[in-house]
Amino acid sequence: MKAAIFKAKDSITVEERPKPSVKEPTDAIVRVVRACVCGSDLWYYRGITPHPEGSIGHEFIGFVEETGAGVKDIKSGDFVIAPFAYSDGTCANCQAGFQTACVHGGFFGGGNEGEGGQAEYVRVPHADGTLVKVPGSNFSDEMLASLLALTDVMGTGYHAAVSAEVTKGDTVAVVGDGAVGLCAVLSAKMLGAKRIIAMSRHEDRQALAREWGATDIVEDRGEDAVRAVMALTDNVGVDAVLECVGTAEANKTAFAIARAGAIVGRVGVPHDVQIDAMGTFYRNVGMRGGPAPVRAYMDILLPAVLEGRINPGKVFTFTTDLDHIADAYAAMDERRAIKSMLTIG
Amino acid sequence: MKAAIFKAKDSITVEERPKPSVKEPTDAIVRVVRACVCGSDLWYYRGITPHPEGSIGHEFIGFVEETGAGVKDIKSGDFVIAPFAYSDGTCANCQAGFQTACVHGGFFGGGNEGEGGQAEYVRVPHADGTLVKVPGSNFSDEMLASLLALTDVMGTGYHAAVSAEVTKGDTVAVVGDGAVGLCAVLSAKMLGAKRIIAMSRHEDRQALAREWGATDIVEDRGEDAVRAVMALTDNVGVDAVLECVGTAEANKTAFAIARAGAIVGRVGVPHDVQIDAMGTFYRNVGMRGGPAPVRAYMDILLPAVLEGRINPGKVFTFTTDLDHIADAYAAMDERRAIKSMLTIG
Repeated sequence: MKAAIFKAKDSITVEERPKPSVKEPTDAIVRVVRACVCGSDLWYYRGITPHPEGSIGHEFIGFVEETGAGVKDIKSGDFVIAPFAYSDGTCANCQAGFQTACVHGGFFGGGNEGEGGQAEYVRVPHADGTLVKVPGSNFSDEMLASLLALTDVMGTGYHAAVSAEVTKGDTVAVVGDGAVGLCAVLSAKMLGAKRIIAMSRHEDRQALAREWGATDIVEDRGEDAVRAVMALTDNVGVDAVLECVGTAEANKTAFAIARAGAIVGRVGVPHDVQIDAMGTFYRNVGMRGGPAPVRAYMDILLPAVLEGRINPGKVFTFTTDLDHIADAYAAMDERRAIKSMLTIG
Repeated sequence: MKAAIFKAKDSITVEERPKPSVKEPTDAIVRVVRACVCGSDLWYYRGITPHPEGSIGHEFIGFVEETGAGVKDIKSGDFVIAPFAYSDGTCANCQAGFQTACVHGGFFGGGNEGEGGQAEYVRVPHADGTLVKVPGSNFSDEMLASLLALTDVMGTGYHAAVSAEVTKGDTVAVVGDGAVGLCAVLSAKMLGAKRIIAMSRHEDRQALAREWGATDIVEDRGEDAVRAVMALTDNVGVDAVLECVGTAEANKTAFAIARAGAIVGRVGVPHDVQIDAMGTFYRNVGMRGGPAPVRAYMDILLPAVLEGRINPGKVFTFTTDLDHIADAYAAMDERRAIKSMLTIG
């Protein structure tokens, strides 16, 4: 089969690799129909964080081709969404709703052969705990894009909003205008935010943010951004902050614009971020979040997509096939695309 | 009047100072009946943090003697509890329930003349927003002790539990066995915790912790404490952590024993604490808390005290008068007392 392979900084290739097969009785093999590139993939693509040479990609949807003897709920032929983390669904952490911390779980796309989503086939461990069956099989391209967004970015944006405890009538700020940040805007709107300040300096992203509920756009960064948000909120700060970047600067901004008692919902993977306990203490500013348990949000988000109430697939502004995976990465790296999708098979 | 005065490390004296008078129309003058020493007072007493020479103490109860022309709800003769922070009750932060971040507020005992609670009289700014009237005037010593505990430690322990989102059936760990830690145990119990692990190595404190609901005692510290708590929880960690110390070690322990998705409710004033964003990220561990808005919890805690459902005054294991304030500090510093009370007037 064809699979995207990370070679080194700025170098992603497509190579012929053995098609994965069932290794554990709880495995399923999924034939991928759509996959995509994540903002977090850019960290290793850009050489900022290390990544082993090998299979990559953690966002994919497709048809189940084969299941192990221990798989009960998922059947061959099912159309499924694979959350970016696999999880058994039964451990204490899964039961608490944090499948990304499953004690028997892990993440797709970490380099191991057959476990990357940017490929024709993927071996999915703990298929019953991990995969979400989508009723039906004949989906429009638009619907496929939105279902694909549920593997990560939409659930991650939603996790930012839930973690920050966005409630009806809130004034919310979203730090980051990548696909996750935009989905965070949409999620804040779903949860009833009245005012949504999107921090963005790219016209295409601002437009989608506004379409999804942003009421204000702040183009500044750093200290200027803090001043701008404080000016918009009578110097009080916002009721909830959704941190969707992960850099030290983004985190600093996020904590600075929170009103007393607010929570920073953080979903950007932190890179060299230290949170000054004292700097947040006197304002009672909190933080929560981490890798989104997108599996836990599927009950809310999948019906919303299937019924057309949300259309997170709009984050895909560049589409190509697996052979052109390098273009998909480059388009995102150069910010020509908000998010790149791959049609496979 | 007599007032406790901080001179320098290890040196607290009682001096004759001018009785405070109404300066702003929203002021009240309170004649102090009971005051006490806080664990946070020990930081400057021990020379760890700086403090200006001057008036100290932020926990006091007593009778209103005089009010400014702008004070509407509080009357001369009222028996009142003064939360450790004064607040106007009307700003955005107060309205959001975070009176300790009042934009016109501040803290008692910061050195300014007439604003320390360890004294015969105190000037209370924003009397209507700050003071809580207690119905009645003839209280037993035991009741006075529990009312005094509402100025800070009980509300602070409760804030730790609320911040950590303790809910019915939870397994909770309390880091710190000072008066706040013990009140945090009591608060966790009030909020329905099923199992409460108190981290304590002092027999008198362990006994009170058990009386108030602790089911397990962990005497270890640092890595050993983490191992002990993990062993008690099937290696999952606890559902809620109440951090009532503020040191780097206590915070490290607190974050390490949290289960995936748990929140560290922190009320210990942080001293040189940096929270590693990455170290908490993959487990979705959060934190919230800060100076307790004890004013906000008065509706819950004052009836509980008046009706005898809780008796937080038991934290006072040493009582003296204002003339012996130095003994009150020394007893806490040397851990002979959990908390020291002063009878005044």
